[in-house]
Amino acid sequence: MVVVGGGIAGLTAARNLVKAGRSVVVLEALSRVGGRMVRRSVAEGGWVDLGGQWAGPTQHRLLALSDELGLKRFPSYYGGEGIVAFDGIAGRFKGDISTVRGLPGQRSPAPAGAVHDAERGTAALATLARSVSPGQPWTAPRATALDRQTVADWLQRNVRTGFGRFVIANEGVFNSSGGTLDEVSLLHLLFEMRANPHGERPDSDLYFGGAGQIPLILARQLGDRVAVKAAVRAISQDSSGVTVTTAAGRFRAGHVIVAIPPTLAGAISYDPPLPARRLQLGQRMPLGTLAKVHAVYPTAFWRPLGLSGSAVGTLPTVQATADSSPPDGKPGILTGFVAGQGALSWATRPWAQRRQTVLADYRTYFGSRASSPVDYVEAVWPANPFAGGAFNAFMPPGVWTGYGPALRAPIGRIHWVGAETATRWYGYFDGAISSAEREVGAILGKT
Amino acid sequence: MVVVGGGIAGLTAARNLVKAGRSVVVLEALSRVGGRMVRRSVAEGGWVDLGGQWAGPTQHRLLALSDELGLKRFPSYYGGEGIVAFDGIAGRFKGDISTVRGLPGQRSPAPAGAVHDAERGTAALATLARSVSPGQPWTAPRATALDRQTVADWLQRNVRTGFGRFVIANEGVFNSSGGTLDEVSLLHLLFEMRANPHGERPDSDLYFGGAGQIPLILARQLGDRVAVKAAVRAISQDSSGVTVTTAAGRFRAGHVIVAIPPTLAGAISYDPPLPARRLQLGQRMPLGTLAKVHAVYPTAFWRPLGLSGSAVGTLPTVQATADSSPPDGKPGILTGFVAGQGALSWATRPWAQRRQTVLADYRTYFGSRASSPVDYVEAVWPANPFAGGAFNAFMPPGVWTGYGPALRAPIGRIHWVGAETATRWYGYFDGAISSAEREVGAILGKT
Repeated sequence: MVVVGGGIAGLTAARNLVKAGRSVVVLEALSRVGGRMVRRSVAEGGWVDLGGQWAGPTQHRLLALSDELGLKRFPSYYGGEGIVAFDGIAGRFKGDISTVRGLPGQRSPAPAGAVHDAERGTAALATLARSVSPGQPWTAPRATALDRQTVADWLQRNVRTGFGRFVIANEGVFNSSGGTLDEVSLLHLLFEMRANPHGERPDSDLYFGGAGQIPLILARQLGDRVAVKAAVRAISQDSSGVTVTTAAGRFRAGHVIVAIPPTLAGAISYDPPLPARRLQLGQRMPLGTLAKVHAVYPTAFWRPLGLSGSAVGTLPTVQATADSSPPDGKPGILTGFVAGQGALSWATRPWAQRRQTVLADYRTYFGSRASSPVDYVEAVWPANPFAGGAFNAFMPPGVWTGYGPALRAPIGRIHWVGAETATRWYGYFDGAISSAEREVGAILGKT
Repeated sequence: MVVVGGGIAGLTAARNLVKAGRSVVVLEALSRVGGRMVRRSVAEGGWVDLGGQWAGPTQHRLLALSDELGLKRFPSYYGGEGIVAFDGIAGRFKGDISTVRGLPGQRSPAPAGAVHDAERGTAALATLARSVSPGQPWTAPRATALDRQTVADWLQRNVRTGFGRFVIANEGVFNSSGGTLDEVSLLHLLFEMRANPHGERPDSDLYFGGAGQIPLILARQLGDRVAVKAAVRAISQDSSGVTVTTAAGRFRAGHVIVAIPPTLAGAISYDPPLPARRLQLGQRMPLGTLAKVHAVYPTAFWRPLGLSGSAVGTLPTVQATADSSPPDGKPGILTGFVAGQGALSWATRPWAQRRQTVLADYRTYFGSRASSPVDYVEAVWPANPFAGGAFNAFMPPGVWTGYGPALRAPIGRIHWVGAETATRWYGYFDGAISSAEREVGAILGKT
């Protein structure tokens, strides 16, 4: 069996095939495994994840895997208050942004009625989401109408206040794979709300040493079954098997599992060509525009100040932050998300300027101590050709209803795997794992 | 100089470079040149274009080129009446669908007020379009608002009657590169209305022998400067030039002109990687879902019946037709367009079924004589991996405003050419030619 892509989906697929006694080769384009799951050591003995980092209590497949591999978790820090910086006005919140209040003696960033407006909008979205099946969003009773509008358009027409839209959009970015909301279909947002219930707290736990250890351990176990610097150029299939052509040679197998985002899979040459719907799907699932940064401090200085390290705002560069420090806050790690189209301009600047603009926003959120980290690392995912963006691929309008059925359907001996094919925890580690289980099960059932 | 892509854009770029005394190689992935510009001989001594076919009186660059190459044109036949088949009700129109009337003694497919509704909607779009600059759609005063909605959504909210929406959508498909309107940004439609004024009748003339002769003649003149079966895998650039890697070897040059649609250009591997905005643009310009069919009859039997051969309707397979016969109507050629998401399902059926469903709709439009052509040919563009779809690439919501500036900006020694980079006759032959002139001029000006 050949697996294309050495991210968590491809590696767990390979692991499951090996467990079933099959011979496997994993072909990874980069010189490292992990895809968008990468850990890095930072100053002061710390570690960070440049890609995904969190685990949640109902992500059973992820938890089972990481337990089996011997990784330990700890609760991600959410003590204290979060910070809001909305259109130049600072505020604090506790738990949920809708609890926002102004600083002592100052007005709140939320004008009168805006919190209620946000709550009403969120409730309306939740009601709409109930009609959407995560397995087949295109069958929703009003799928056509829900899929011909963007999230930004819906917000503009249904949420009156700018603050209300800000609150929902902030959650929405995390609920739509990091896509800018003027690009994301409303149906896609509703699908992710159903597939990835944030009420189940997917950002609950962090891993000691970083989640990015998981692919490293899996690859070590797979040993020389993993080939790096082996970008796949072509996949051909005939009645007896598949031939996969890479820069590092050709591989023959009974089936191929393609475990990379659909847009990257679309860059492979197929013989016979993919059917029209699948071919065009590969043109229609762009990845989000998010970049991720980490600033490292000797201690989590914000905690004694009663701050959680969470911030959301309309600042020029960093739209959200989180505390990614270990339990004792030593070192202190503030993780930032650079989102939206501003991220693309930011991405083209020199590293020193990128760092400077990030730290300027950190200072606005957390004060002058945030300006001088002992370490700073970043992952500009939209500039990485073998990722294409972050968090994940999303569906623009018309794609779920027009192309949805092509997302998971195997084409002969080609099986599609990856977080973007999951119906539960879409775009998450857990979804990547379940997608691998799904297709490996299908292959083992057939052969 | 290296040119990637042997369509009309790449070939005219090469021709202009040769005229300026430069050495050139054109790298074409397929075994033939022409891209979406392909002529084919059919029964009864006829010919058809499987891709684009028409020329218009203000397409000065196309006309100059085809005159220079010695091609002759004739007026495309629009005599007689056109046919409407809307939701099971037949009608006739003369010139413009809004002149629709019912068959003698029967009611019109357009309910009372629907024609006025369509006219009002068309006028509203024309008003909106006036604010959009074809060179920089993202600078329109209301660009953000216009770019966060789809055409289908706008129609639903602004045009009350189904018939009104049908009329505008029918024109809209031809004004949005063949994209399904629930995928196309309203800003993109307005851009195409400005760049491609249908009032200038771009479907005015046909070429004796087919427009697809043009790339064949150009390639013949370029001789062994054109390499076929030379799909480009990688482009690397350094301070002294570019290296272009293909299945047929490596080519070194001072500059490379990439003359293929942005989504296909996105499948090439670049070193150094493209900047984030350009990289992600390659994920965000899907091609339309159109397929094109031609049925050939001994004579244009519809002409003596007072019919133009034009039909538009809500039939299952063929949404529009046109008369592509030579002036004397011998043979008679009825060209059909299979549009929308139905085209993708149709595309996956066996050839005999595809033909049968097309001819069933032809019969509904034109009667039983249409059921038995002497020849039938088709081009299923969305299933062609080196085309990706037809007519062209379009912008979904958020793409013009987020990524527009990356569409034409050269990246060092890489220049982007093709009908999708044109600001006048976007997606047309004429736009492909002007895009080649633009970038060849820029290169010659620099070197």
